[in-house]
Amino acid sequence: MRVSGTPYRTIWPTANGSVRVIDQTRLPFTFATIDLETAVAAAEAIRSMVVRGAVLIGATAAHGMALAARSDPSDAHLDEAAAMLQATRPTAVDLAWALKRMREALAGTPPDARVRVAYREAAAICDASVEQCRSIGIHGLSIIRRLSATSGRPLNILTHCNAGWLACVDWGTALAPIYMAHDAGIPVHVWVDETRPRNQGAALTAFELGAHGVPHTVIADNLGGHLMQRGRVDMVIVGSDRTTAAGDVCNKVGTYLKALAAQDNGVPFYAALPSSTLDWSLDSGSDIPIEERSPTELTHVTGRNARGYIESVRVVPDGSSALNLGFDVTPARLVTGLITERGVCAATRAGLRSLYPEVRGAT
Amino acid sequence: MRVSGTPYRTIWPTANGSVRVIDQTRLPFTFATIDLETAVAAAEAIRSMVVRGAVLIGATAAHGMALAARSDPSDAHLDEAAAMLQATRPTAVDLAWALKRMREALAGTPPDARVRVAYREAAAICDASVEQCRSIGIHGLSIIRRLSATSGRPLNILTHCNAGWLACVDWGTALAPIYMAHDAGIPVHVWVDETRPRNQGAALTAFELGAHGVPHTVIADNLGGHLMQRGRVDMVIVGSDRTTAAGDVCNKVGTYLKALAAQDNGVPFYAALPSSTLDWSLDSGSDIPIEERSPTELTHVTGRNARGYIESVRVVPDGSSALNLGFDVTPARLVTGLITERGVCAATRAGLRSLYPEVRGAT
Repeated sequence: MRVSGTPYRTIWPTANGSVRVIDQTRLPFTFATIDLETAVAAAEAIRSMVVRGAVLIGATAAHGMALAARSDPSDAHLDEAAAMLQATRPTAVDLAWALKRMREALAGTPPDARVRVAYREAAAICDASVEQCRSIGIHGLSIIRRLSATSGRPLNILTHCNAGWLACVDWGTALAPIYMAHDAGIPVHVWVDETRPRNQGAALTAFELGAHGVPHTVIADNLGGHLMQRGRVDMVIVGSDRTTAAGDVCNKVGTYLKALAAQDNGVPFYAALPSSTLDWSLDSGSDIPIEERSPTELTHVTGRNARGYIESVRVVPDGSSALNLGFDVTPARLVTGLITERGVCAATRAGLRSLYPEVRGAT
Repeated sequence: MRVSGTPYRTIWPTANGSVRVIDQTRLPFTFATIDLETAVAAAEAIRSMVVRGAVLIGATAAHGMALAARSDPSDAHLDEAAAMLQATRPTAVDLAWALKRMREALAGTPPDARVRVAYREAAAICDASVEQCRSIGIHGLSIIRRLSATSGRPLNILTHCNAGWLACVDWGTALAPIYMAHDAGIPVHVWVDETRPRNQGAALTAFELGAHGVPHTVIADNLGGHLMQRGRVDMVIVGSDRTTAAGDVCNKVGTYLKALAAQDNGVPFYAALPSSTLDWSLDSGSDIPIEERSPTELTHVTGRNARGYIESVRVVPDGSSALNLGFDVTPARLVTGLITERGVCAATRAGLRSLYPEVRGAT
């Protein structure tokens, strides 16, 4: 997507073989890139959320394997790099998927060809992801088009966290249909949950939508239920970090609360996801490990002070502890539909099987 | 309650006739008081949330009328002061209740006796409020005692916003039962919703509980649903800014989302409220006016920076707008019970009528 008129992806290799990413910890106030030179740097970028979002985490891990091959293409070193990258974030299943795909591509390749193959495979993962997100956008657009036809006013769509192009390589998952609707001239307005504690909605989704010119309003995570009660939300679209074979959606913490409110008010609730986030090995989302992050993400808030500098301020008393869990699970019963690159299906085993009949274990 | 070992109320008259309040905008990092000399100053303290919380707003408005009488006890001036105080906050019904009670006490009093009567009446409102909160605590304690007896471990109670002694004159509403349980040796642990956008949970509830020694953990407003899904919440207690005759509860925005999650997970959900917050003229909470506050409360976060100074940082991109509504309505069907100064009742017209049979219009 475009930033100040220039088209960008979130990750790309440079001429010298390093991997360039947008430093998302500095958004929305500074748009800057970082060059990753090693697999360790790639792992640190994932862990510190310089890059984040299920799809981009996978793409960065894939490039991390290419950087590992560049420094030492031996099996031992690649094993070590894959383990390190896998350990960065426990909840997203894309990470494991991308690392598995890289390992398979490299396993059958002689060491002296591995660097070339690794970069090629990482690029293929990125290109495929862009194409998947584009397809998700097209399938989601048909839902927006249908709802818009009956609404007679700009369609109000609520989203939680950031599942836009910054969370992917391009287009995004939850936001792809919104970009396509906006570009097609369908009037849409987005309610952006600020998404505490890391404020990815306020910082990243608002930045993305603003840069693309999509009308939007930032709201506290607490407000969405009230807006639904008053008929001011026509649709919810969120992303998914992991989706089980039975359709449970594990996404940024707070998603479950919005799904409950959507159900209570008859608002359609969709999760948009590429098939790489599907975990066919799990039925129940309650088996998904939930990442616990540092309490300082909650006790401190980072933003731009009156003098224009980025600063962190503490908002919790010194003696109080805090708990910071990153995800929750929305049971399939609350999900109106899953928007995938192959189409829209019910959030059920049968629904997913209808789109992915070839997956073993999906039957 | 105690701060650094000294017992405090949130509001009290000084020897020279001014009214002293705790400046809640400076908590949790600075404990300081402000002297209000005029009704205008009292209105400004309410509007700027130096004082906040349904009960304390009423108590401050009552003292504002005493300050107005001190400067000019004429009917015209008292009319003007009452209108100004009434206009500060639209949602809480305590404000109207306290002003009405002050007007009635002053109407039958000759102008030269009004100052004395006004201070006496404001003091009586405060004393009655403390007694009401104490009674709420006793009735809520019996619920906690019963749940604790079957739990076999510290009882985990979730609360939203601040309905503690800082929101009242003393004791609090939602927190009164928790203080009493803690003091009675019943092991309790409180999940404190940070309560965006003004962070009254992180700043005030955490401060209060910490000062009294009650174990607690601050969480993002997004986390409560997940904790309930995992069996880590035994009970929810919130306050209420206005409760309808049919039991709908209007409280800090986000309360409705927690009530939905409580119902979905079989967690008891209670609202604690003095009868002064009951609005017998309304059945449906959807008729309650919802206060819209400045978007800057959402776009900026105030806290203590690394150098120890209080500072505001912006967290939303410059081009993005924000909407800041202060309250939502939890339908009575989601409320397990109402804890009032007269006892616990069902959140229904019949339940409330059983406790307040004397109220006209309650039948």
